[in-house]
Amino acid sequence: MINAYAAMRAGAALEPFQYTRNELGPMEVEIKISHCGMCHSDLHLIDNDWGVSSYPLVAGHEIVGVVTRTGAAVSHLSAGQRVGVGWLAGSCLNCEQCLDGNENLCRQGQPTCVGRHGGYASSVIVDARFALTLPDALKSELAAPLLCAGITVFAPLSRRQLKKNSRVGVVGLGGLGHLALQFARAMGYSVTAFSTSANKQAEACGFGADRFVDTSAAGALSAEASSCDFVLSTVAADLPWLDYLNLLKPNGHLGIVGASPGELRVPVFPLIEAQKSIGGSAVGSNAELAAMLDFSAEHKIAPLVECFAMRDANAAMARLRKNQLRYRAVLVNDR
Amino acid sequence: MINAYAAMRAGAALEPFQYTRNELGPMEVEIKISHCGMCHSDLHLIDNDWGVSSYPLVAGHEIVGVVTRTGAAVSHLSAGQRVGVGWLAGSCLNCEQCLDGNENLCRQGQPTCVGRHGGYASSVIVDARFALTLPDALKSELAAPLLCAGITVFAPLSRRQLKKNSRVGVVGLGGLGHLALQFARAMGYSVTAFSTSANKQAEACGFGADRFVDTSAAGALSAEASSCDFVLSTVAADLPWLDYLNLLKPNGHLGIVGASPGELRVPVFPLIEAQKSIGGSAVGSNAELAAMLDFSAEHKIAPLVECFAMRDANAAMARLRKNQLRYRAVLVNDR
Repeated sequence: MINAYAAMRAGAALEPFQYTRNELGPMEVEIKISHCGMCHSDLHLIDNDWGVSSYPLVAGHEIVGVVTRTGAAVSHLSAGQRVGVGWLAGSCLNCEQCLDGNENLCRQGQPTCVGRHGGYASSVIVDARFALTLPDALKSELAAPLLCAGITVFAPLSRRQLKKNSRVGVVGLGGLGHLALQFARAMGYSVTAFSTSANKQAEACGFGADRFVDTSAAGALSAEASSCDFVLSTVAADLPWLDYLNLLKPNGHLGIVGASPGELRVPVFPLIEAQKSIGGSAVGSNAELAAMLDFSAEHKIAPLVECFAMRDANAAMARLRKNQLRYRAVLVNDR
Repeated sequence: MINAYAAMRAGAALEPFQYTRNELGPMEVEIKISHCGMCHSDLHLIDNDWGVSSYPLVAGHEIVGVVTRTGAAVSHLSAGQRVGVGWLAGSCLNCEQCLDGNENLCRQGQPTCVGRHGGYASSVIVDARFALTLPDALKSELAAPLLCAGITVFAPLSRRQLKKNSRVGVVGLGGLGHLALQFARAMGYSVTAFSTSANKQAEACGFGADRFVDTSAAGALSAEASSCDFVLSTVAADLPWLDYLNLLKPNGHLGIVGASPGELRVPVFPLIEAQKSIGGSAVGSNAELAAMLDFSAEHKIAPLVECFAMRDANAAMARLRKNQLRYRAVLVNDR
């Protein structure tokens, strides 16, 4: 019996919910959850903002716990090992993308809490190949948010393969942004934080920003034109895209990981003339997850978290809904 | 005395025009022009479509000729050598982009026929570092269009560093597109031509397309969804961008080199979800130009050209204006 917290309908508060899943597939593992991070995507799923939700809905895809059972064919994990699970709990492992090491782009990718029950629970069962062992140096409550928020910003920063001391801009200073600042700094870049919240300047610099730009000030963005090799937008809002494209030097790239609901609109000519590009990124592959965890342990990358008992999930959710969290909530099960 | 053909005002027919430039800077070379390709950009400059033109305007930036004089400090070229000059006749060679080998992205880049007189002429003087020696195997009338049209499509295809047998789509079958098909095929890709002109199918396949999609047919684009690793748009028109973004597999890239006059408009979500990107490309660096020339010689890449005597430049221009050229015009000086 798995004790979970579920939304019984779109937008509902979470309530205790039990379900049973006894059988373990040959490549599955059962994980006793110690911690589960809370992500904005959980909120979107609970509210059915993406039209893919079914109820009861047990959210949660930043899971840390201990292996309790392993399927008959699992040889690389054993009971007692601490593991983490992120956005994906499985993929086909046979398609072009999977074979190429891009499980996160698999069409049959199985998100941890879409169409199945996720991590706001006592246990979860996932494909063992999507349960990653965690470096000892990472505390569980800090590792949890890395498994989605962390990889979401680490992967595009890492893939870009910029030279040391390249100028990187991070737009937005929330759950994603405060990790992006840390990763970018640790990768050796010169980092500028772009935020509408002038009162976050000191904190941004503490996370690794060399410079802070208050984007609510008139002319602030245009004053930074042509200053960045790479700009990573972490905000879930529609931006004045051309202003952000203009932040780039020639050959620069605007990476988008914040779920902006609307359209990207920019004139074509400046893209061509200065050879700029714009692209999205979707969490990361298992290899990227493992690299991110190692990198985080080595460079002491850690989210700033607010911990809540699992039973207080609704209190955490209330703060998430109001954008009050600094910067991620983590639900903690009793031992 | 240099004998040129100039537009005396925006949109005017070309007429004989003479100018004198006797002094040679220490790093300059004088080139006696044998051939000059005709590019759509020349038309835009003659018509002042970009608001940067001054008159008399001598267009032409696909120049092949023979060095006749060298500046005092030029040591790598000497009189009698055959050279080519493309879009750029000089750059600062000191900025971050130039030092990084991206002369094409220099803010002080000096286009061959903007603010100075270009290649519809008997001679031209350029910075010697922007006059490239040509492989013997390339005929001059075929090398000329490679210097702008060729590099424009070669550079983004080459930079993308796709694996062999990647699926590449080329949109548009004109001066740029017919070269892109050849380069993509020679690079080992599986190539699909996308064109509104069904009657060009056989020709497209002759240039290297493995498949041809008539985009004017209803549903033709959606039938090709998720089929390409890289799509290169060579058309100077506004496309239904989302339809073309949908041609990409996850991780795919939409490269734009055709001067679409309007806005790029796509929803943000599919960019993120499938980790796609969109970017422009602007001709290429000197290193890329040299690589393109060698590659063209090795793989027998050649534009299909219509040659005109330089004095018949207006006749060539008339065909260019009507999009009648198959596929590039080259102006040829008397020996």
